[in-house]
Amino acid sequence: MKLSTLKNGTRDGMLVVVSRDLKKYVEVHSIAPTLQFALDYWRIKEPILKEIYKKLNDNDLEDVKVFDEKFCESPLPRAYAWADGSAYLNHVELVRKARNAEVPKSFYSDPLMYQGGSDSFIGPRDDIELESLSWGVDFEGEVAIITDDVPMGTSIEDALEHIKLLMLVNDVSLRNLIPPELSKGFGFLHSKPSCSFSPVCVTPDELGDVWKNSKVNLALDVQYNEDLFGNPIAANDMTFSFSDLLCHAAKTRTLCAGTIIGSGTVSNKLDGGAGKTIIDGGRGYSCIAELRMIEVINDGVAKTPFMNYGDKIKISMSDKAGDSIFGSIEQTLVQYEKE
Amino acid sequence: MKLSTLKNGTRDGMLVVVSRDLKKYVEVHSIAPTLQFALDYWRIKEPILKEIYKKLNDNDLEDVKVFDEKFCESPLPRAYAWADGSAYLNHVELVRKARNAEVPKSFYSDPLMYQGGSDSFIGPRDDIELESLSWGVDFEGEVAIITDDVPMGTSIEDALEHIKLLMLVNDVSLRNLIPPELSKGFGFLHSKPSCSFSPVCVTPDELGDVWKNSKVNLALDVQYNEDLFGNPIAANDMTFSFSDLLCHAAKTRTLCAGTIIGSGTVSNKLDGGAGKTIIDGGRGYSCIAELRMIEVINDGVAKTPFMNYGDKIKISMSDKAGDSIFGSIEQTLVQYEKE
Repeated sequence: MKLSTLKNGTRDGMLVVVSRDLKKYVEVHSIAPTLQFALDYWRIKEPILKEIYKKLNDNDLEDVKVFDEKFCESPLPRAYAWADGSAYLNHVELVRKARNAEVPKSFYSDPLMYQGGSDSFIGPRDDIELESLSWGVDFEGEVAIITDDVPMGTSIEDALEHIKLLMLVNDVSLRNLIPPELSKGFGFLHSKPSCSFSPVCVTPDELGDVWKNSKVNLALDVQYNEDLFGNPIAANDMTFSFSDLLCHAAKTRTLCAGTIIGSGTVSNKLDGGAGKTIIDGGRGYSCIAELRMIEVINDGVAKTPFMNYGDKIKISMSDKAGDSIFGSIEQTLVQYEKE
Repeated sequence: MKLSTLKNGTRDGMLVVVSRDLKKYVEVHSIAPTLQFALDYWRIKEPILKEIYKKLNDNDLEDVKVFDEKFCESPLPRAYAWADGSAYLNHVELVRKARNAEVPKSFYSDPLMYQGGSDSFIGPRDDIELESLSWGVDFEGEVAIITDDVPMGTSIEDALEHIKLLMLVNDVSLRNLIPPELSKGFGFLHSKPSCSFSPVCVTPDELGDVWKNSKVNLALDVQYNEDLFGNPIAANDMTFSFSDLLCHAAKTRTLCAGTIIGSGTVSNKLDGGAGKTIIDGGRGYSCIAELRMIEVINDGVAKTPFMNYGDKIKISMSDKAGDSIFGSIEQTLVQYEKE
């Protein structure tokens, strides 16, 4: 099943069911006005919504409208929880290698994860508005899950059933604010401004056999200023599965329905070592920072600048037939103007 | 105005207006079913709720019921954002002194603040359920504000008007999980489980002249196992005011209405140095960790243990006449049993 949240002038938008081909949708206000509401009552609402989804795909519904990703909010325009992992250790290894530091052994068994701001996500086609380029603006292409209610201390065996939806993420990152912030020890606050999610989220069954071991075995498609910047396989080199990440998030607390957990920047190794750019025959990168780290490791200095105003980022994922699954995040960085 | 959220079997509880003396309340379902809803439309809802509050105090309403703090949720049982500052540098100085480290100079101008889990707060009279005493369970008595919508980059001049409500916090902390977690750099996740807030939240005008420079000039009352453990003055030694903390939180992002920002553990110096216990004539502490740090500094070893199952923590604040303002957080630590 595919779900989306359309802009309607309210804080939480309007939940709609979207056809598999992303061409049409149907309103479901009488069943669930918002995605959070559907998640709050998922056991009851999911089968009803799935029935509608089936009819929509079978052309068996009236009041069907043309779906346009331009009018989408992030599936949850605001959420009660957004915890972002760092499941691709290649990313961490590159960060460390670029500054000649070792990756602690524990990082391979104990996931890195931070609590992110979840109160004001931006839409998948909204501009990224920020005040200063000196902050070092970067994108991060990721995959994320949405959970139902997760009890504290959930076991790895029980984790999978709590994964109810999947979507893509652009985890906007302010690279030049990260080192001073992390050195304070309290995690990211300024350096992770509002992020955005794909126009459409989907139930795991929608992915078929590419959803395996709670990983997505498809390539992420990251285009920067209309050039392919990266197409790493999301299931490859993912040290921690979504089940692992979910258990980690729930170790000392319950998670409320609608909790979003991110994979971290999707990042593939190449021949056991760091990746290569697309031009050099590699799978490229899902963020500028990784390319800059490769440049530092190879040449001693980072050449590729962070984003400038006007730069465009597009993040999507296609199924084996080449059809877009989640719609695409397409955003332009613009100067924020205070009112 | 005083507001509270009563348990009613729903995720967000039922908003009620509470009388100044905390003895009675009135339902306001037709105006705002939940506190989040009231905050979403605060400009319209606040004057209506204040009119009801006036009538309630003037005994000018029907359908008034007896208020009992035992039936309260935290004012926002789940929130879109909870960012906790560390505004009392005395606390940080003690942490550092106990491990012979300096406090970086920048800490006096750049607040420490972390993004906390906000999806599953526990009620002010709910047990604190945790799986293991080996985590080093501690309480932290704090004051917090709730904001309306705050634009990105809000100035210190504009900050005050965005502070709509105040309440108390018990920021439960798992001390033995903090060092390994903070050493990873990604902030608190496991070490800050679900926290709780006072039964009642109040508008700033309710505090009268003790609300000054966006600080609360009253003593917090922290009782541990029915003994006074601390009564530090919340306005004293607060390096960063709530306006400062709000601006910090909003530096690179907008804050959604209903964002909660905490002060951090309230902590007073004594004669320019670290505080003393109540028995020794000081104002005591708002968490066990501070007392343990004093013990380490004085005797080389911490003697006071962290909480055991069955231990009770009570946090409240009285006005100058000695009347409780926010009601009291009263919680017992119990062993968490997986279902």
